Amino acid sequence: MSKIKIGLFGFGVVGQGIFEVVRKSKNANAEIVKICVRNPSKPRKVAADPALFTASADEILDNPAINLVVEVIDDAQASYRIVKSALLRGIPVVSGNKTMLAHHLPELIEIQKAHDVALLYDASSCGSIPVIRNLEEYYDNDLLLEVKGILNGSSNYILSRVFDHDDTYANALKQAQELGFAESDPSFDIGGYDSLFKLVIITVHALGTYVAPERIFTYGISTIHDADIRYAREKGVKIKLVAQVVKVSDEHFTLFVMPEFVSPAKYIYSVDDEYNGVVIRGECYDRQFMFGKGAGSLPTASSILSDIMARLHNYRYEYKKLSYLHKPEYTTDITLKVYVRYTDTDIHGILRFSKILEQYTSRENGNYLIGEIPLSELLAKREQLAGEDVFLANIPIFFLNRDN
Amino acid sequence: MSKIKIGLFGFGVVGQGIFEVVRKSKNANAEIVKICVRNPSKPRKVAADPALFTASADEILDNPAINLVVEVIDDAQASYRIVKSALLRGIPVVSGNKTMLAHHLPELIEIQKAHDVALLYDASSCGSIPVIRNLEEYYDNDLLLEVKGILNGSSNYILSRVFDHDDTYANALKQAQELGFAESDPSFDIGGYDSLFKLVIITVHALGTYVAPERIFTYGISTIHDADIRYAREKGVKIKLVAQVVKVSDEHFTLFVMPEFVSPAKYIYSVDDEYNGVVIRGECYDRQFMFGKGAGSLPTASSILSDIMARLHNYRYEYKKLSYLHKPEYTTDITLKVYVRYTDTDIHGILRFSKILEQYTSRENGNYLIGEIPLSELLAKREQLAGEDVFLANIPIFFLNRDN
Repeated sequence: MSKIKIGLFGFGVVGQGIFEVVRKSKNANAEIVKICVRNPSKPRKVAADPALFTASADEILDNPAINLVVEVIDDAQASYRIVKSALLRGIPVVSGNKTMLAHHLPELIEIQKAHDVALLYDASSCGSIPVIRNLEEYYDNDLLLEVKGILNGSSNYILSRVFDHDDTYANALKQAQELGFAESDPSFDIGGYDSLFKLVIITVHALGTYVAPERIFTYGISTIHDADIRYAREKGVKIKLVAQVVKVSDEHFTLFVMPEFVSPAKYIYSVDDEYNGVVIRGECYDRQFMFGKGAGSLPTASSILSDIMARLHNYRYEYKKLSYLHKPEYTTDITLKVYVRYTDTDIHGILRFSKILEQYTSRENGNYLIGEIPLSELLAKREQLAGEDVFLANIPIFFLNRDN
Repeated sequence: MSKIKIGLFGFGVVGQGIFEVVRKSKNANAEIVKICVRNPSKPRKVAADPALFTASADEILDNPAINLVVEVIDDAQASYRIVKSALLRGIPVVSGNKTMLAHHLPELIEIQKAHDVALLYDASSCGSIPVIRNLEEYYDNDLLLEVKGILNGSSNYILSRVFDHDDTYANALKQAQELGFAESDPSFDIGGYDSLFKLVIITVHALGTYVAPERIFTYGISTIHDADIRYAREKGVKIKLVAQVVKVSDEHFTLFVMPEFVSPAKYIYSVDDEYNGVVIRGECYDRQFMFGKGAGSLPTASSILSDIMARLHNYRYEYKKLSYLHKPEYTTDITLKVYVRYTDTDIHGILRFSKILEQYTSRENGNYLIGEIPLSELLAKREQLAGEDVFLANIPIFFLNRDN
């Protein structure tokens, strides 16, 4: 490919960032030739030629001069339609839509193979941190044991404000929204879904297996109370929203997203504000840590630019691990040690703990317990927990003799 | 390439690590078919079939079944001969020899092009941290501003012992050697040459320019005194041996390796013991940080395995940045702010400072000054400084309006 001619879908903060970044990179040999938006005549901050804009997807998809579709729209349904149409026509695609990818990856991988066409999405997973590419290319062997990290900048920003700046949760959330880190509907971030969708994508490239989001236990931070923060502070830990995929034996791996008590000795303890941090653990290299800006217009845009540049050399994900013969299977049959804080909820009526290690009740301070519980039990009771004033946090322990 | 058949040169700690790692990785589809060593009949700890060993390089180079040479021998001269011979015969090579690469990269890049053959060397630069691959593939655009880090595990281990454990320098060095982090000739590590050679390789992939090692100012840690450690502690900083390539303007970049006062706000402050840490800074993504084990048999071996696996898919470095039209040039025409501690040396007789900011003299505690000095002046006086009881440390300031 001598020059990349881009059809861009979406011109929100990320789309505008891409426009800036492509212009800045003198050696990129890439050009945005058409931009599809809902309302082409809307006034925009970024100085782009009005002739670039169109409201018609076909003006991009039917243009034989365009050799790359870059899709950064919010709407996952529309994203799916555009990405699929482009791939079916043999046009390579760069996408940043984690919701869409987490739900449609198996089909989109099949289409890539059948039509010999590339779909790249490094920007979907950790903003500017090259997690997918490294899992695919560098950790492309079966020595990988764990990928664990803080994948959502907004919820991490909120937790940092609360922990390090004594801010209230409500105030921190408002600030995150004002700074543009959090979506206007914050449940996507603070409910853990953003982290979950990224984890689904990461797992495909880490262990070669797709696990549908609804099969993965996900618990967010929206029910966090002052009592939880006090408790964590007393124990000398921070509460972070952590997503993890962990090989628990040669035959099995597990996945979950939930708040976690993180001790100062852990790398992710110092991942604060809107930053993301990912720990990759393997059999020979121990732990590696990657850290960077996980959110924001330009970091995401520069990650998209890396995918665009990769297309100059016809790069595509090979999904090698999907065809491995010795692949571990997904299990929720592991036991977690958890902190559960609740107010009026009949917690023992909902959750069957395998062991209660501590139990504290107080009319004034609320109640909490420390207990052991199978992950499968948490997953099964997810619906019943939703809406309850209950806060859950993982207390890292060894799974099946492995340090997590 | 359906299966990788490896001819291995060298069976020291790294070679043995590779042997282990290849065996561990069930899906690797790679096999070591011959091992060239100086003394094939020497008894070895690792249980390898004696028939695998040979003392003849040609038994590997002339074997048509071997489709990859992996070279992990100590001797840079021998490494050069082997790598060059293999490439000239069209056999792809994976090498971990930073000394050899730092001196011969331009020629080896030419040979790769002329003979359409790949040379991979990710393991040469930061042990298990995939710096080269990421600079080549992910940061493959001209938004990069800086790569800066702790690239040498041995000297970092020594400095950590001294700073965090109140150990003496001599004792720390002895420990590093006992633990196998330091070479038996420690000058390679503590003189800064290991970091220098890695920096030369990194710069080729960061900015597309090869700068010969002798053109780069390099100052090690062997002259560090208690007085320097006390001074740094009083200022609340740590002394780290830092290598850096920094774009100082659109037209110029600079390079140097020297001890640096690192404040707690910096990512590399917490890179302790034998770990390496690299900060990559760009125009859009701000700072990214990669952290991991930089030394040791298995971390290096797993990095070599990543290069081996990459060959399964015919991966090679494209050296795209070498052909960029807008490339910054190397300059030493920048001013550093430095701490200089000396005993009897006539420091003002050797170094011409552009400005003296502080000067302290004491018969009892030794003398130091804080001054500004051109990097070109330091480079010019390198020979005169060698052997003197002088300790130099960079105090990070802004270069030409850029935050370093």
